[in-house]
Amino acid sequence: MSTPEAQITEWFASQSCADKERFPIGIGDDMAQISLGKNSSVLVTTDMLLDGVHFDLKSAGMEKVGYKVMAVSLSDCAAMATVPLAAVVSVALPPGFGTEELKELYSGIRRAGDKFDCVLIGGDITSWDKPLAISASLLSTPGKTKPVQRSGASPGNIICVTGLLGGSLAGRHLEFVPRIPEALAIAAAGATSMIDLSDGLSTDLSHICRASKVGAIIDAEKIPLSAEAKKSDDPVKAALNDGEDFELLFTISKPDYQNLTKQWKMQLPITEIGQVNDKNKIQLKAADSLRDLPPAGYDHLKNDY
Amino acid sequence: MSTPEAQITEWFASQSCADKERFPIGIGDDMAQISLGKNSSVLVTTDMLLDGVHFDLKSAGMEKVGYKVMAVSLSDCAAMATVPLAAVVSVALPPGFGTEELKELYSGIRRAGDKFDCVLIGGDITSWDKPLAISASLLSTPGKTKPVQRSGASPGNIICVTGLLGGSLAGRHLEFVPRIPEALAIAAAGATSMIDLSDGLSTDLSHICRASKVGAIIDAEKIPLSAEAKKSDDPVKAALNDGEDFELLFTISKPDYQNLTKQWKMQLPITEIGQVNDKNKIQLKAADSLRDLPPAGYDHLKNDY
Repeated sequence: MSTPEAQITEWFASQSCADKERFPIGIGDDMAQISLGKNSSVLVTTDMLLDGVHFDLKSAGMEKVGYKVMAVSLSDCAAMATVPLAAVVSVALPPGFGTEELKELYSGIRRAGDKFDCVLIGGDITSWDKPLAISASLLSTPGKTKPVQRSGASPGNIICVTGLLGGSLAGRHLEFVPRIPEALAIAAAGATSMIDLSDGLSTDLSHICRASKVGAIIDAEKIPLSAEAKKSDDPVKAALNDGEDFELLFTISKPDYQNLTKQWKMQLPITEIGQVNDKNKIQLKAADSLRDLPPAGYDHLKNDY
Repeated sequence: MSTPEAQITEWFASQSCADKERFPIGIGDDMAQISLGKNSSVLVTTDMLLDGVHFDLKSAGMEKVGYKVMAVSLSDCAAMATVPLAAVVSVALPPGFGTEELKELYSGIRRAGDKFDCVLIGGDITSWDKPLAISASLLSTPGKTKPVQRSGASPGNIICVTGLLGGSLAGRHLEFVPRIPEALAIAAAGATSMIDLSDGLSTDLSHICRASKVGAIIDAEKIPLSAEAKKSDDPVKAALNDGEDFELLFTISKPDYQNLTKQWKMQLPITEIGQVNDKNKIQLKAADSLRDLPPAGYDHLKNDY
């Protein structure tokens, strides 16, 4: 089962440059990788955030929008276990917005970037009579390991997440901290695949399973629920589908996971929530039942207006 | 005299990272440069294009929008005399747009990129109930020379442009060819500063003069006019202010210019249109008069709705 977005992404990937020497990682991961010759490469990601879709400008304000646009791209660096370098941001301003609003936006961009020594080095400012649209593109370099892709999960691997999931719309989606140091530690421990939870666990897990050509079983009772998710009518559904948790979802062999948890010194919890298998489907185990788990998180190509 | 956009750009530049080893070129040029260690660096630019501002989607269609968004960023590579590598594109789709429209967009992106071996390696797709917004970010590497900045113009240098100016809105703004081979040849000949004519000659020249802390005199009679500009009520004004010519504006010493023209084998004309001086103003010489030339091209921060 695949979403419209997954289908078009696969089409784009099928069209794109197959030169693995120049582009070791192409379309279909959280970042693409460009080789610059011997032992030098750079990775790049881009994200578009829209007023009324990814934030409500009136209630959030420009500073938090700036923080979020940078944090979303930094979270892509975390997803690949890479080290952020610098970002560029282009912005379409609504009527009446000018210098003051741009300075607020910049302070938010800076608040997110400064946490990870990631500098704003360029941008483009445009205006129109429509709501705020903002796009960030971020460059990074590999950490001590190769970038962790979506395609490396193997049957027998266990499936883990960082942090607590669900209910991010209550506020966390504007104030989350990208999991970069955690990602670097997880990659060093031997993660076989990784993604950040932007669309929601059910959808992001489907991305890993499609890329790795594997299946998975998730244990509903093991999913770590946020306080906000617990308040909802269906906490597990919230954790599976709400999206914008910006936690890490990764797969790892059992022995490597045991080593990882032994040496884990960070505050953020890591939770084992399921297992990779060789079936062609993703299933959810809840109480004594086992049911199919469709990707029901955020789909960017659904026009629900 | 400076535009609102120039002022906020200077403010951004004043706030940004001063570490010239990590970031040899920061905010305020057509691309920023990131050092990746010895003899390795990458440059990056970003542009936001909006329906109703930079194109009319109904009349242009998605393919031409794709071409333009890529060509605008490729023109930034030309402005710095760098060699394009790869691009990422993020898009906010209007209601009802999906797979088919994305494929059309991609064919235009590809048509522009293929001319210069520049590959689309990533993107982000979002949807909303507003008009199309699209942002491209493009990576390049230095050519055989250092990237040519805006800040190197010296009194006594002559001022040149490529091609013919004015009236691009008649169609050329959607179909221009980025001047990359020309830019590499001009840089190799010793250009002291360069910019692409995106906002219009009067405004883009003001960017060079501010960055280089110089003045200039432009000879109105020497400005090469496009056929479309010639049809307008005021052809020189059209060439000065219409914008989106995407030709190159550069400065160069007289001896280097003589060598450049001697060895120039490309079809595109190069025209000397004025001279750099040490005054604090930009002037236009027309017939026997000499008047101030204000930056009256496109200002991205003017909200004229």
